Amino acid sequence: METKFKKLISEIVRLSSGLYQKDFLLTWEKSNDEIKQILLVAEILKYLRENNISLRCFDSGLAVSIFRDQSTRTRFSYASAANLLGLKVQDMDESKSQIAHGETVRETANMISFFTEIIGIRDDKYPGIGNAYMKEVAEALDDGFRNGVLHQRPGIINLQCDIDHPTQSLSDLLHLENYFGSLETLKGKKIAMTWAYSPSYGKPLSVPQGIIGLMTRFGMNVELAYPEGYNLKPEVIEIAKNQAKESGGSFKISGSMEDAFKDADIVYPKSWAPYSVMQQKTELYKNNNEQGLKDLEKYALSLNSNYKNWECNENLMKTTKHGSALYMHCLPADISGVSCEHGEVQKEVFEKYRILTYIEAGYKPYIIASMIINMLFKEPDKILRNLQNRASVRKG
Amino acid sequence: METKFKKLISEIVRLSSGLYQKDFLLTWEKSNDEIKQILLVAEILKYLRENNISLRCFDSGLAVSIFRDQSTRTRFSYASAANLLGLKVQDMDESKSQIAHGETVRETANMISFFTEIIGIRDDKYPGIGNAYMKEVAEALDDGFRNGVLHQRPGIINLQCDIDHPTQSLSDLLHLENYFGSLETLKGKKIAMTWAYSPSYGKPLSVPQGIIGLMTRFGMNVELAYPEGYNLKPEVIEIAKNQAKESGGSFKISGSMEDAFKDADIVYPKSWAPYSVMQQKTELYKNNNEQGLKDLEKYALSLNSNYKNWECNENLMKTTKHGSALYMHCLPADISGVSCEHGEVQKEVFEKYRILTYIEAGYKPYIIASMIINMLFKEPDKILRNLQNRASVRKG
Amino acid sequence: METKFKKLISEIVRLSSGLYQKDFLLTWEKSNDEIKQILLVAEILKYLRENNISLRCFDSGLAVSIFRDQSTRTRFSYASAANLLGLKVQDMDESKSQIAHGETVRETANMISFFTEIIGIRDDKYPGIGNAYMKEVAEALDDGFRNGVLHQRPGIINLQCDIDHPTQSLSDLLHLENYFGSLETLKGKKIAMTWAYSPSYGKPLSVPQGIIGLMTRFGMNVELAYPEGYNLKPEVIEIAKNQAKESGGSFKISGSMEDAFKDADIVYPKSWAPYSVMQQKTELYKNNNEQGLKDLEKYALSLNSNYKNWECNENLMKTTKHGSALYMHCLPADISGVSCEHGEVQKEVFEKYRILTYIEAGYKPYIIASMIINMLFKEPDKILRNLQNRASVRKG
Repeated sequence: METKFKKLISEIVRLSSGLYQKDFLLTWEKSNDEIKQILLVAEILKYLRENNISLRCFDSGLAVSIFRDQSTRTRFSYASAANLLGLKVQDMDESKSQIAHGETVRETANMISFFTEIIGIRDDKYPGIGNAYMKEVAEALDDGFRNGVLHQRPGIINLQCDIDHPTQSLSDLLHLENYFGSLETLKGKKIAMTWAYSPSYGKPLSVPQGIIGLMTRFGMNVELAYPEGYNLKPEVIEIAKNQAKESGGSFKISGSMEDAFKDADIVYPKSWAPYSVMQQKTELYKNNNEQGLKDLEKYALSLNSNYKNWECNENLMKTTKHGSALYMHCLPADISGVSCEHGEVQKEVFEKYRILTYIEAGYKPYIIASMIINMLFKEPDKILRNLQNRASVRKG
Repeated sequence: METKFKKLISEIVRLSSGLYQKDFLLTWEKSNDEIKQILLVAEILKYLRENNISLRCFDSGLAVSIFRDQSTRTRFSYASAANLLGLKVQDMDESKSQIAHGETVRETANMISFFTEIIGIRDDKYPGIGNAYMKEVAEALDDGFRNGVLHQRPGIINLQCDIDHPTQSLSDLLHLENYFGSLETLKGKKIAMTWAYSPSYGKPLSVPQGIIGLMTRFGMNVELAYPEGYNLKPEVIEIAKNQAKESGGSFKISGSMEDAFKDADIVYPKSWAPYSVMQQKTELYKNNNEQGLKDLEKYALSLNSNYKNWECNENLMKTTKHGSALYMHCLPADISGVSCEHGEVQKEVFEKYRILTYIEAGYKPYIIASMIINMLFKEPDKILRNLQNRASVRKG
Repeated sequence: METKFKKLISEIVRLSSGLYQKDFLLTWEKSNDEIKQILLVAEILKYLRENNISLRCFDSGLAVSIFRDQSTRTRFSYASAANLLGLKVQDMDESKSQIAHGETVRETANMISFFTEIIGIRDDKYPGIGNAYMKEVAEALDDGFRNGVLHQRPGIINLQCDIDHPTQSLSDLLHLENYFGSLETLKGKKIAMTWAYSPSYGKPLSVPQGIIGLMTRFGMNVELAYPEGYNLKPEVIEIAKNQAKESGGSFKISGSMEDAFKDADIVYPKSWAPYSVMQQKTELYKNNNEQGLKDLEKYALSLNSNYKNWECNENLMKTTKHGSALYMHCLPADISGVSCEHGEVQKEVFEKYRILTYIEAGYKPYIIASMIINMLFKEPDKILRNLQNRASVRKG
């Protein structure tokens, strides 16, 4: 066992990382070494926890969570990660707080941060809002720290915004690494990130954007497919293109699920709303135009219904590499005949990969814990070595 | 002090218990030794805590709570128990989560369990639903654990379902043990579990069912009394009958509060809804029949109002053994002239036993903590010995 | 560093304090030594925490919070303080609990307290209710402790009631001590606690009452100013008068913001509702008179609007001592042109003192933690020495 630990630690030492005291908002703002370090530390934490080693490196301290959208799995992943390290989650429930009463973001950000180590924010509903809000909080924290209001500058973790969903995409990447054996083996593999039909309206774009924004960095052949009108944020498309070039992979957009699935090693079929619809939604929301929002929903649902055939089914799966591509999903999936009449994925396909999607999700608490350690400790390898040497029992 | 500890520990060692890695759903699914072990470990935990010994045997880990019904005392008992042992309560608030959006129980059960040691569930509103839901969660956890999704299989504690309320009935039993001196002294004692009038409608059947399902195992003479129509779940009645036979006690059903109270050592007067009304409620609820639910409430309240004379009053108490039976209640009681005009118990009677009902309730955190230790550690006596030897201070 | 610690500790030893096992409801119920001890312990906790020393003196235990009013900063301060010492906040959310269903305060107070060390209560909306409620809880806890229901008697901290806001006023005092150098330097300083215009209605009186009820004890010249009709609770005025006399300071009431600001060393301009309006509000609330409440709001807002000129602006600030009085606020402030059209303070003034108001707020978690330590440990100096000697690392 010790050997595995030593090997992973020695890899960290070789990396050049500047994660310390930086927020984690978008994966493409981080270097390849930094991405690798997140994965490595996550692996080590998993290894230590599964060997019943205490990972408590905080004796007190808050991990604030701000969820501006419903969430089960991300909320639990964040709580799990914080608890693993010894931090206490304090929910910033805006309905309970005075934010609703016109209090400024700047002030509140400081008021909730006196004893806070980390702030996880989920704000993914409206394009142009979530990421901007996180940056506003970040500036407020900088201001408070610089001026002696805060004794420490809490880090911010993006738990899903309008642009990226880094804790998801990094869990997905760690899943791929474990499934295929290493990051290196991903080179040349084809991943199909495709739109899929769902009876619901307005699912965020952050997952497909996060996937193409991350997977294009590892020499993969990334194919994005969606029906006309369902394009993503242009800036992210540009990033994906450039990264694919740099990494020796490729990035292609197509209008056909069949094309994308063909010979794919990995498929990620998932519904999302058209970027233009989301932009209109933001405008209507800002203007409190409820009728407009209803009309838009009606329009979007009727647009959706043209593409019920965008379903991940057994026939399509047969066309993938050896008929056995890895199916991925961030969950919950809309499963035809289970959670809805027509959905993103056929029941038979989902059932075959169900356990794998659960395992995929299981990396998230470790990814978040890794982010916290990397953001809050200058020498994460030292902290991890200390934890292993201390060998305090987690349970018992 | 040490002597008491050693005596209790030595009793545990003599028991044959299979509580480890089993869920705790119904008391009658557990052997007598297992019931005794729950009580013993609870006693030891109480002893150690009151001597300011740290009971922290988890350095991290979640204790998930799922409350599908309002709760103060059980919520606080669960939180107290978890915190005592070092676990962090994470509330699975269904209104905040995506469960409401058609996500399957199977998936969610795994998603909330990656770092989870224990899941406490309260779901007592509709017959046929609560216990079945717990079993569904249990199967999902088995599936996840078997397939490598979960590194540990969290235990499930029934915090009240449609059938049983084991944390309540075991606290009640521990109260009786302490009040009368030992489990053995309970033999031959008469306990009257009787219906009582309340102005509210639809109180769950789990408390009376839990009481007759547990107290019939200790050689007690259990008399269940209720007005016509207020019968309990037939399966539980059968269990109570059989257990009474086996334990050398008796189980009798009568239609008279007077009869039940006569010469009773213990009385437990409490309102509940007729089983048939609860069954109709479930059907109407499943069909979203709001008018039907209103009509049923009206009918049930009018049925109730025929039995306002089912009140635990001083005259009735005089007819009990030496006029001094122990009055029990799971709280909150409907107290005539205090919380309502006519209720389950007369003000004077309640006030006399008020402190005792509080003490009765005070065992619950220890019962829950005992369940957690017994379900999660193979050798609870070893854990308890370690805690005592470590003698780490809880406060100071 | 050690020197500072030793100096502070030696000061504690010299004080005569009876804070142990007493609730903290109103500052004027505490002696001067006790007030000083709260400040001193808060300073020491701040010093130790900022030197990364663990302040964990509880290995388990609940810190219950009961917020009957919205709150961000007090909620986070309480959570931060509890977490710093090793306690777990358990929210008593009345909407989730059975309190709403007629359960008595007495019973609930015991039910939530079996493993509880401290109960923080915020109940500031209606005069005659909040403080009375806290006392009712206190009596219930006394009763439960005396009768063996509770193994320990939890302390109660007033997190804002209708009469006082001690955690706020003591944070303010600690801010003044640090800003001016010592408590002694406050002697002879003029503080203007003045009403200020706000577009909102019904802000509690506890802050101005708390300020005049505390600052009059340190030889300051306290001037309270408000427009006709906005008087405070007469009993608190009496207390302020008497204390000013005793401390060698002065207490004056005026009807002019200009008068109050003139030559002031400190200004605290803040909106509040007239005492008589609050009294009517309580009556209407008790009688569920919704129309009456609406009419009262309309009346109060129209009364308010006569005094839009009660704004803390640059011209007024120029009239203060050397034109540079310290501006204070409990936050959030109503800032003209920022959070509202006309408010309590001009944008330019607020911006100049913004960071200082944040720093002022930052003392609150330490004040609360100090209260907890002083209320729960007989010899706080011993506990603090132990923590320093143990020198366990908080983070790392």
